[in-house]
Parts: sequence; C-alpha cells; structure tokens
Amino acid sequence: MSNQKITPRKQNYAQWYQDVIQSAGLAEHSPVRGCMVIRPEGYAIWEAIQRDLDLRIKRSGHMNAYFPMLIPQSFLAKEAQHVEGFAMECAVVTHSKLENGHDNQLEPGGPLEEPMVIRPTSETIVNHMFSQWVQSYRDLPILMNQWCNVMRWEMRTRLFLRTAEFLWQEGHTVHETRKEAESETLRMLDTYADFCEQMLAIPVIKGRKTNKEKFAGAVHTYSIEALLQDGKALQAGTSHFLGQNFSKGFDIQYLGRDQKLEYAWTTSWGVSTRLIGALIMMHSDDKGLVLPPAVAPQAIAIVPILNKKQDDTDIRTLIDQLLKRLLPEKAIKIASTDRDSIEKYIINENTNQQIVVDWRKYRPGDKRYHWEKRGVPLRIEIGPREVAARSCMVKRRCDNTQASMQIDDLTPDWLRDQLASIQKTMLDKASQFMQSNIRHANSYDELKHILKEHGGLVRCFFEPNDEIEKKIQEETKAAVRNIPFDQNTSIGRCIYTNMETSTEVLFALAY
Amino acid sequence: MSNQKITPRKQNYAQWYQDVIQSAGLAEHSPVRGCMVIRPEGYAIWEAIQRDLDLRIKRSGHMNAYFPMLIPQSFLAKEAQHVEGFAMECAVVTHSKLENGHDNQLEPGGPLEEPMVIRPTSETIVNHMFSQWVQSYRDLPILMNQWCNVMRWEMRTRLFLRTAEFLWQEGHTVHETRKEAESETLRMLDTYADFCEQMLAIPVIKGRKTNKEKFAGAVHTYSIEALLQDGKALQAGTSHFLGQNFSKGFDIQYLGRDQKLEYAWTTSWGVSTRLIGALIMMHSDDKGLVLPPAVAPQAIAIVPILNKKQDDTDIRTLIDQLLKRLLPEKAIKIASTDRDSIEKYIINENTNQQIVVDWRKYRPGDKRYHWEKRGVPLRIEIGPREVAARSCMVKRRCDNTQASMQIDDLTPDWLRDQLASIQKTMLDKASQFMQSNIRHANSYDELKHILKEHGGLVRCFFEPNDEIEKKIQEETKAAVRNIPFDQNTSIGRCIYTNMETSTEVLFALAY
Ligand SMILES: [Zn+2]
Ligand SMILES: [Zn+2]
Repeated sequence: MSNQKITPRKQNYAQWYQDVIQSAGLAEHSPVRGCMVIRPEGYAIWEAIQRDLDLRIKRSGHMNAYFPMLIPQSFLAKEAQHVEGFAMECAVVTHSKLENGHDNQLEPGGPLEEPMVIRPTSETIVNHMFSQWVQSYRDLPILMNQWCNVMRWEMRTRLFLRTAEFLWQEGHTVHETRKEAESETLRMLDTYADFCEQMLAIPVIKGRKTNKEKFAGAVHTYSIEALLQDGKALQAGTSHFLGQNFSKGFDIQYLGRDQKLEYAWTTSWGVSTRLIGALIMMHSDDKGLVLPPAVAPQAIAIVPILNKKQDDTDIRTLIDQLLKRLLPEKAIKIASTDRDSIEKYIINENTNQQIVVDWRKYRPGDKRYHWEKRGVPLRIEIGPREVAARSCMVKRRCDNTQASMQIDDLTPDWLRDQLASIQKTMLDKASQFMQSNIRHANSYDELKHILKEHGGLVRCFFEPNDEIEKKIQEETKAAVRNIPFDQNTSIGRCIYTNMETSTEVLFALAY
Repeated sequence: MSNQKITPRKQNYAQWYQDVIQSAGLAEHSPVRGCMVIRPEGYAIWEAIQRDLDLRIKRSGHMNAYFPMLIPQSFLAKEAQHVEGFAMECAVVTHSKLENGHDNQLEPGGPLEEPMVIRPTSETIVNHMFSQWVQSYRDLPILMNQWCNVMRWEMRTRLFLRTAEFLWQEGHTVHETRKEAESETLRMLDTYADFCEQMLAIPVIKGRKTNKEKFAGAVHTYSIEALLQDGKALQAGTSHFLGQNFSKGFDIQYLGRDQKLEYAWTTSWGVSTRLIGALIMMHSDDKGLVLPPAVAPQAIAIVPILNKKQDDTDIRTLIDQLLKRLLPEKAIKIASTDRDSIEKYIINENTNQQIVVDWRKYRPGDKRYHWEKRGVPLRIEIGPREVAARSCMVKRRCDNTQASMQIDDLTPDWLRDQLASIQKTMLDKASQFMQSNIRHANSYDELKHILKEHGGLVRCFFEPNDEIEKKIQEETKAAVRNIPFDQNTSIGRCIYTNMETSTEVLFALAY
C-alpha cells in the first residue's frame, strides 16, 4: 500500500494539488505531451457529473448528437474571429497513413488534399450541418448537445485544469429570433450555476465577459466564476450568444413567417473536465480529496478493523446486518476477483453510487487513510470494541468529525439525511469562503493592494476596454472575470480612467 | 413534413438501408470524408446501447477510464503485427497549429518532433500506462474499459457499418495467468452475445477467428457473428486474447508469488456504433426502421387524429386519462418549445425511455408514417370514433398488427408485457431466420453454390489456412466468419484439401 505524503497547502499549493490527485488515483500525465490519463477513480467523478448534467440538458429539451472530430481547415477560416482564436493551438492532421520510409523507419504517407484539425470546439462543423437542416422557421429551434473530446495544444498544462485534450459537452442551438437565442444562452448559464451549486457544492458568480475575454466568434460570452481556496478564480462554464456570426459564416438561413429569408441566431455553451479540477481545489484539505456526496462514486466506505489473530466471525455478522440495514432490497453486488477483497454494492441504480467494504488484510491505519485520501464522504469503522456494543464509528470526511452510532440506528433515511447534511455543510463552507473573499476597490491602487495582499475577487467600478484590461493584466496578472449580473444601480468612477460609469466588474487572478 | 419514399429491399438493398436511416433521421454523411454525423434519433439508440452495456461491464468488475486520443508513432511500432495491421489507415497529426502562409492562406505550422496518430484502437497507449501501474501480482488484475471515438481511414464507407471515425468501447485487462486472461476473453464474448440477444434481439454465433482473420497483435480473436436480412454476416463484437504480445512489447512485468519477474497476460475487447447498423439491417422493413423495445428511445407514440374543424377537448381529455394510466407517478415532462407540439414524457429514469404525444396539426396519415418509419415499437391512435368508445387503436411496429383496446385496460403492466412480447417476437423471428439460413456444404462446389444461390451462413469441414482462405475469398468473396464453439465431435474432410479434419467453420459474405 502506497502511503505517499501529501504536501501541505501552505508549503506548496501547486504540489499539494498534484499530490491530492495522485493520492486519490484520479489522473496522471501521459507520454503524449499535455494529455492526461484519467484513471478510474477520476473518471467515475466525470461520469457522475455527466449523468446529472445530461439529465438537466435533456429535460430542457436538448438532444445529444455526434459530429466528426476532424474539421477541414477551410471551415475554421469561415468565421474570422473564430479562426484567429483557435488556429494557433490546433492539432493538424495532414496524412492518412504511416509507411516505411528510408532506413525502414515509419513516416507519414498519403498526404491529404486539405489539412484538417482535431476539433478545438465544434461550432464550424456543427453550423455547417445546421445550414443543411434549416430551411424554414418550422425547423427551428434546433437544440443540440454533444459529449466529446476536444484538443487545444497547450504548452503549460495542469491536470484537469488545463490539458491539451479534454472531455466536455458542447451545446449548439439555432433560433428564429435574437430574443430566443439570448434567453437560451442565459437559461444554460443558469443550468450550469445550479448544477455547480447543487452537485459540486461550488457557489458561482454569473456574469458577462468583457469584449476582451469573450469567446472567439461570440457576440456575448457569459460565464460562471468560482473562487478556489488559494484565492484564485476559475471559469467553471461559459455560454455564448453567437448572434448571426456563425449563421452568416455558414449560411444558416430560414424562410420566415413573413416569407422572407433570414439568418438564424445561434448559441453554444460548454463545461469540461476542468470542473473536476475545480472540485478538487475547492474542497480538498491537507489529508487529500474531499468529495461532495452528490458526485462521490462511493457514498460510504465500511472499514472492518481486523485483528489478525482473532476470529472475525462476529465482525462479519455485524457488518452483514449493517449492510442489510443500509442497502436497498435489490442491491447489486459488483463481481470481485479472487484477490480483490473490497466488496462493492450499488446503492442507487440511477447514479451507480456504491457502498464499499474493505476486507483487505492491511493495517487499520492504512485502510483508514486509503479511503480518507480518496474523499469518500462517510467512513464507518467497526472493530472488536464496536462489535461488543453493536455500535460503529461514523466519520464525516468533509469536517473530519466522528460519532459513535448504534448499528440499529442506521437506516436508509439516516444515510440520505447524512449525505444531504454533508452536501449542505460543504456548500455553506464554500459560500462563506466566497462571501468573505469578495472585496471592493475604489482605486487602481486598492485593486493592486487587494490582489497582492488578499487575493480573492475584487469588485470595482470599471469601464471595460481591451487596451486597458491588457495593461492591467500586464501590471497585476489579474483579468476581469466577469461583469456580474447583480449590478448595483449606483454610479461610480472607473478605477483606471476615473470616468463615471455604472459598470461594476470582478477582477481576480485566475486559473 | 418530408415524405421521402423508402426504396423496397428487393429493388435495391443498399439504397433501402440508406433510405431507412435517412427516413428515421439517424445519421448522415458529413463533409469530412468517411465521417458521419450521428443525428439525435440515432445517437439516442447509441445511448441506450451504452447505458445497458456499461452496466454489464461495470457489474463484472471493470471500471471506465480515459486515455489520450493521440498515440506517438513509435508506440504503434512496438508490436510488429499491430503496426502492420493499422499503419495503412491512420490519421496522422504532424503539426501543432495553423498559420498564415504565402497568399495569406492558412497552412500547417509548428511541426511536431514525432508524428502522432489518432488512435485506431488503444492497446499501445493503454499497455504503456499499464507497464507503469503493474509491479507485483498484487496489482493484478487490472480490469478497465474506455468509451471513446477512434479513427481508421476507410475509403469505402457505409453509415454505421463502416466509417472512418466511429464510437466504441474498448476493454483492456491485465492478468497474472494465461488461464485468467483466457477466461476474461471468453467472459466478455459471452457478455456481448447476451447483450445482442437480450437488448438488440440479434442472435449471434460465438466462435474463434482463424489466424488470417484475427486482430493484429492477438494470439486468438473471438467473435460474435450475426446474420442480416440479405444473407450477409456481420461481426458484431470481438474479444482478443493478446497473450504476452503486448506485455512484451510494452514491458508489463510483475513480481510473482514466487518472487520471479513475469510478463503479464492481456486482453482487449470491443463493440462499436456498427451495432446500430446491425440493428437497422436485422429488423427493419420496407416501411422503415423497426426498433426492439429494449433500446427504443420512445416506447410509445400516441397519435391523436385531430379534425381541424372539430373541437378537440374530448380527445385531449381521453389522452390525459390514458397518460395518467401509463405514466409513472412522477413522470418527467421534457420542456418543449413554443412551436414544438410533440409532448415527451420520461417513463423510465434509468433508461430515459419516453412516451410521446404528437399534437402537431399535420394530416393523420403523415403523423402515422412519421412514427412508423422511426421504428417506435407501439403506436396508439385515438380519433373521434375512439373517443366515443373510450377505446384506442394499438399498433405494433414489429409485425404491423393492430388491435382495438379499451383505454381502461391499458396499465403499466400491460405496457411492460407488450414491450416484452414485442422484444420476444423480434428475437424469435431473427433466430428463425438465422436457423433457416445455416446450410451445410460437403464440398467446395457446394460452398460456392450455396453462397451464390442462397447466401447465409455455410457450415463445413475446413482446415484454416491463410493461403487457402485468401484463395477462397478471391474466388467467392466469402471468408471464414468464425470457428463456432459448438463443434461436432465427428471428423470429416476439408472441403478444399479433402484432408481429414475435425474443424467445422462458418463461411459467409460479410459486411
Ligand atoms: Zn488590505
Ligand atoms: Zn441450392
């Protein structure tokens, strides 16, 4: 059993993040530059995210589809801002085979007539197809979503938060009117915000990106911004109102109610595996990962404290009784291999969430640590002392509290309430952290002071401007995260130009 | 409403297949050569396949993970047969950006030090990672699966059945002993066979591939073979015993119980979106798609027969009552847009299966045809006559039968039984078709006669041999599909060499 230590946050935050991921077995770097391997424990979190978000997307009327991962170079060029935004970080496919060259070494063969890129995002290919599907207003709206991998060549990568290849969902919709498209854009932003708060226990601030920070090809980009433990912000999801930019680039026209040809209005929106990075940074501690119950692949780890010399019949009997109390009637037991002594039971067929029992013959401390660093919300420990008292120790990972409970008091209702309570505790803690780390700046000097001394989100009057934002970023490394929706009605002075403005923005250092 | 005609099978089978797909809106060709767009109705079938198969894979102890889609060229070269099998059909990534070249035209820039291919399959990258994860026999077995896209450059493509990019799952496992790896290989073949029969209503024949037909890099490849309506076979899934070929190529060694270093034993297995092609060809008819209930995104389409001039209050009341009878208590209604008058209700939260009500103001015949060609297992039609009698017409898509039913006789149990009965009818029909299209050949002439005049599967004594199989394929276009597991114990004479052999094989033309 590996008992690699986790570097404390105060000592080295970046190393702590890397250690938490490694200790929990979530992901690792691969030999393909910038691409990660998502290990089973990490992928199970992605599956939990997908399962819930997919339902939200479907219930609001969208359907999933799949478009080619290769995009002809000429498609990318059809929307001017878009190609500018993505051309510099594309994986380019130029050949269709490998053949034996000189020295009998493999080399690319079968050059393509036109190079293709691996999708960095799919607006171009999707909107090309939409142009063939849309003839009349009767064909609208089109509400579509795609779960897939995308590729953006990144030089400075960090597991989950920034990788060359990542997994995501990208929604793409087409509408008859500007108003409909705008309300779709905001509806999906709300969906993301609700999802983050309810499932990931991550509170977010909704707002509009400045012109400088918007998506390449969008009219408006909206974002949800989270604040992580080290005081840096993270863009957790974006929703783009694309106006008629792509419908003009790809000729999506429809015959309107008035029998006139009109360009349609489109949107796109996405969240990615970087949410897992946000989740890790938001909740974990120096002992390792802490998972909110709503997306934890395992709800409970039951850890028998086995004494090698003693007979373990009694402990097994008690744990059997405990399982009978907690498991649904038709709980499915996952097949285990001969050597594997971790029993796994599915307690929820919708979510695949499990209860595990760790029968391995390791030292009790090692087994405890194993489940602690994996962030399982509840651990239940039962040793000889507990057997005698028909009790167990229940430990909550989120606040490291523990309590002795009678086995007979554990019921499915108790479990449901515990998980709900943990989820709430985690969201409350994260909300309080965010609230106490939003500071107001009345001048550029104050902004700089706060960024340097306190971090967090800095709210101030500021008139968005590409050039000025660039300068501020050079001087402070901070950018406007977004223009939050909850603007005050007052008027103030822009911290940079000192001109009157009613616009308040949030500045922060960010991932 | 598009009422494009479906070409009858007898007239042009290939065109019929294409028409069925187009009429049901399942998929279409994309501007990217060889790559398809899977439209929502088609993707929903893939989701149904994934959902069920994923549970089977997980319950047998495997976990999902994700590996990079790009594979360094040098990795591919590490297993000699493997690179030979895949090098000629790889998409090769050679550059990391697009930049402005002469004439201000985009061209590939940032050449990579080493070309990479988009995974045609992931044995190489996965086994490279395994070599880092495995040290001791205690680390084994590793039971892993990946859902992803893969790319094999194909020149002659057909929607679902053969496309350059396709979606699939690929299982990869590592074991301590040869025996364990072999039994894993067969266990997953059984899983695929059960899945095809129970979910897709496609009976299959399990067997071993000949040396000529096996996977590039495998010791043994096993397959399940289906027989489609036109008498051609289709390989619906494969499971490979890779022996120590990849563990030697990628240095997966473990310290055994005897403290000696050993090479591990590996397997891989996969099914792909081609299953959707099999499904379509297996069950559809000249009216279009026919879906087995187990994977039908919609279980029932309720079609009100609306009379434009008449008040429709009564029909709406009756359909409300019908829905109350059929829907579970907390049925989720999918949000519909202003102009969309198809109501959708989720009747099963696990599978997302729906009941839809088509309130569109189209002609009744058009609405009937709309759901018929989409293969929805049950249609319930209610017009003024039915309202008067509190009845409805229930139409089964699988055999085009219909019956008048009293609304009050429709219950969730009735629905469950109907769907089970339809599923069984479809599997029985497919099984009978297969049974009556397996013919025995006692000579090469008989083989040729059967292939030419009858098609189907031809069973005969044959001693597998690369050269001879190649010759037979040149002469007849047929190949050995597999050496079925249910061998007779008798001995016969090889139809080609006339030598004694106990091996019986199945020949067929195939997709
Ligand atoms: Zn201060
Ligand atoms: Zn004959």
